[in-house]
Amino acid sequence: MTTKFIKIHIPLGEVSAIGPGKADLLEAIIQTGSISAAGRQMGMSYRRSWDLVDTMNRSFIEPLVVTVTGGSGGGGAQVTEFGREVLHRYREIEAKADAMLQTELAGLSRLLKQT
Amino acid sequence: MTTKFIKIHIPLGEVSAIGPGKADLLEAIIQTGSISAAGRQMGMSYRRSWDLVDTMNRSFIEPLVVTVTGGSGGGGAQVTEFGREVLHRYREIEAKADAMLQTELAGLSRLLKQT
Repeated sequence: MTTKFIKIHIPLGEVSAIGPGKADLLEAIIQTGSISAAGRQMGMSYRRSWDLVDTMNRSFIEPLVVTVTGGSGGGGAQVTEFGREVLHRYREIEAKADAMLQTELAGLSRLLKQT
Repeated sequence: MTTKFIKIHIPLGEVSAIGPGKADLLEAIIQTGSISAAGRQMGMSYRRSWDLVDTMNRSFIEPLVVTVTGGSGGGGAQVTEFGREVLHRYREIEAKADAMLQTELAGLSRLLKQT
């Protein structure tokens, strides 16, 4: 996770199908092999991380994450090939937006307070 | 307000300094001359619209919205010249992102369920 000057969400109706938090969560699931461990690593509850996975799985035509052994709070999880493709496409959109909007984002950032 | 294939937020620390909802709210305030009327038009409570205005005003180096006569729930509100500039810059970023990412967004959209 890095600080970004822009956050991009892909909306589906009222929800965000994928955005910065869900993309980071997918990467953490790939790394840890577990939804709960991924959530912990990101400082969120198991419930919250499961909700984000659920929203992603409901938003796309195929599941992005499958649980391997099941069991709430337990069992392993895997990001599917489909999930990796969605993640890759999302990161491409993020990177391209960052690169192509540098001038505009810098102009707007100068109007923001410094944190 | 239109349906978009992408939603862009400009983050400042943990909050979104400006995003689709805040930009729409600024336009509604310009149109109605009132935070509460703008919020009503967007189907949000006065409290929610005031919170969004407060977040914007705290995030940028100058206020985007000033209340003209004050009084909670009452008084008129104006979007400042500074606020109009931020809004204009944000809409430019949105439009440029939409235009330049059409291919990528279409590719990802095909993986989304239809609403």
